[in-house]
Amino acid sequence: MKLESMSFRYDGEKICVLDQTRLPQEKVWLDVTEPDLMVEAIRSLRVRGAPLIGLAAAVTLAHAAKDANEDQVRALAGRLREARPTAVNLMNALDRLMNFAPGEMTAEQLMNETRALFAEDQMLCERISANGADWVLKTLARDPAGEPSLNILTHCNTGGLATAGVGTAIGIIRELHKRTGRIHVYVDETRPLLQGGRLTAWEMNELSIPHTLICDNMAALLMRDGQVDCVMVGCDRIARNGDFANKVGTYSLAILARHHNVPFLVAGPNTTVDLKCASGREIPIEQRPTAEVHGVKGAFGDVRWAPSTAPVFNPAFDVTPAELVTAWVLDNGVFTSPSELIRAIEGE
Amino acid sequence: MKLESMSFRYDGEKICVLDQTRLPQEKVWLDVTEPDLMVEAIRSLRVRGAPLIGLAAAVTLAHAAKDANEDQVRALAGRLREARPTAVNLMNALDRLMNFAPGEMTAEQLMNETRALFAEDQMLCERISANGADWVLKTLARDPAGEPSLNILTHCNTGGLATAGVGTAIGIIRELHKRTGRIHVYVDETRPLLQGGRLTAWEMNELSIPHTLICDNMAALLMRDGQVDCVMVGCDRIARNGDFANKVGTYSLAILARHHNVPFLVAGPNTTVDLKCASGREIPIEQRPTAEVHGVKGAFGDVRWAPSTAPVFNPAFDVTPAELVTAWVLDNGVFTSPSELIRAIEGE
Repeated sequence: MKLESMSFRYDGEKICVLDQTRLPQEKVWLDVTEPDLMVEAIRSLRVRGAPLIGLAAAVTLAHAAKDANEDQVRALAGRLREARPTAVNLMNALDRLMNFAPGEMTAEQLMNETRALFAEDQMLCERISANGADWVLKTLARDPAGEPSLNILTHCNTGGLATAGVGTAIGIIRELHKRTGRIHVYVDETRPLLQGGRLTAWEMNELSIPHTLICDNMAALLMRDGQVDCVMVGCDRIARNGDFANKVGTYSLAILARHHNVPFLVAGPNTTVDLKCASGREIPIEQRPTAEVHGVKGAFGDVRWAPSTAPVFNPAFDVTPAELVTAWVLDNGVFTSPSELIRAIEGE
Repeated sequence: MKLESMSFRYDGEKICVLDQTRLPQEKVWLDVTEPDLMVEAIRSLRVRGAPLIGLAAAVTLAHAAKDANEDQVRALAGRLREARPTAVNLMNALDRLMNFAPGEMTAEQLMNETRALFAEDQMLCERISANGADWVLKTLARDPAGEPSLNILTHCNTGGLATAGVGTAIGIIRELHKRTGRIHVYVDETRPLLQGGRLTAWEMNELSIPHTLICDNMAALLMRDGQVDCVMVGCDRIARNGDFANKVGTYSLAILARHHNVPFLVAGPNTTVDLKCASGREIPIEQRPTAEVHGVKGAFGDVRWAPSTAPVFNPAFDVTPAELVTAWVLDNGVFTSPSELIRAIEGE
């Protein structure tokens, strides 16, 4: 069995992950020679992106099951779950794998389920991209002939690095670029870990999509000047009421978009919806280390500018309330209200 | 004649400036041995802070006038003006010095005017601080006994480094700390040049004011959680209609504050009001180099994380419209409407 994406490889014997903390300066593939190295890789964001985390954890678990008993597998699943508490895709993927009656779980069954998850994610990305592009062209697009490009602002990184397929928000951008050739993307650098400045800027260049990098605090000025036609972001968990968690800074963008009457889209697979979560207030938000705000660190170097004693607040995510969302773009449709969204998911 | 502040020294013979690009790692005083070194120092932000820029330019001009003829002095004034186009304090300070009839300008007159400007700035800071603290305690303060601290969020750096005195927004914070001892400050790091993460975090520590450093995109989350009682910022130019220019990211904060019903104060000396400027749309916004967004650079090191080819948008300032301002805190009063503000200034 072989599974492969832009940032993940499994050949049936060995799991390899592209170390995303070292991009774009270095393309280093890490051998995940034992399961707990994956726990570390997720925690340290070497493996990142809500969909990819779930898949990487599933492959790790299924592969480990070849040489482990059921108790050991269940214990490993627990450690993988704790690696990142906010993204629900991780929980959903592990739930799918752990959904066997005691005594009925075999390595082969786990591997089959994992293969299905991987293929599903690729298909989900394709559908999200097509649904989002359809909606944008129908709702926002002006006459394509002679018109300037459609300006899309995005945050963090939601493309091929973050999923098994073409991505979620970046998947839509990619599809719009393919269909119209008239897309320009404003890339939020996404402090503190710079997923925009490092990864999305790099991915846009790889895909030959015109783009401009900005600091996170410059988005409002662009919106005021009419330079942003739409904001598109991914998500780590969507609650039943439509609130959703995503990279810190997303909530701020949603308020700015509303203030300037700019449509605000959130994109993700249906597996990002947590039906057990009533509202955003129930989503746990991970606090990360002080050093991330004191400076920056990566293959590009390691510097600290802040006084070493400065206290820091460093939430990895924030929650955007449903009322600021124009549309939820999922694989199974584009929804403009949370009730539509939940009906579509529960009806399936 | 001797002039001295936290970041500027003149002993009648020599001008020295504290290189603010190297703070807080290194305290390096630079000798400004010839006038055009000041032009460079302002352009490169070694000398920064709207009030300080005006004063530093005035001292440079008055000192140069000892060995220059009037034409040379006027030409130097032109080069100093162009060093930073947005801040009006620079223009006002130079206007004051250039306000002599041709043939009547002497080095002594310029130096007297400069000395007056310097002393005035210190007094203006004291008055702004007292006015702001009075307003906050009257308008926002809860019963001080047993109450938690008042949480103030600030952007960029507006303290002793940026003025000849105690500062503007930080001057108010300082005064509130002195009066109540119950202040806590959230410090926006202020990308791209990190004046918050480097300078304000350092100044808060020097002043023993409790503080927490955040990335610029985290302010909204704090406001939603009720953690911000007031936003206080400085300004580089206030237009007649109350719009004002300040460090990029200020406009974003003003929208977030309005969305969460958090009072938003802008503080500055009356010399920041540009009576010839009708609205914010007329304020020129300086675009700065690409490298500032591609990475960071200072005494702490020099790193670039973004792809070297990534196009960048890098405005140094943005404009906040008057309708988002709760109060303008000036040396001559606290105003809650632009018309009050302009009346107070023109009436003088």
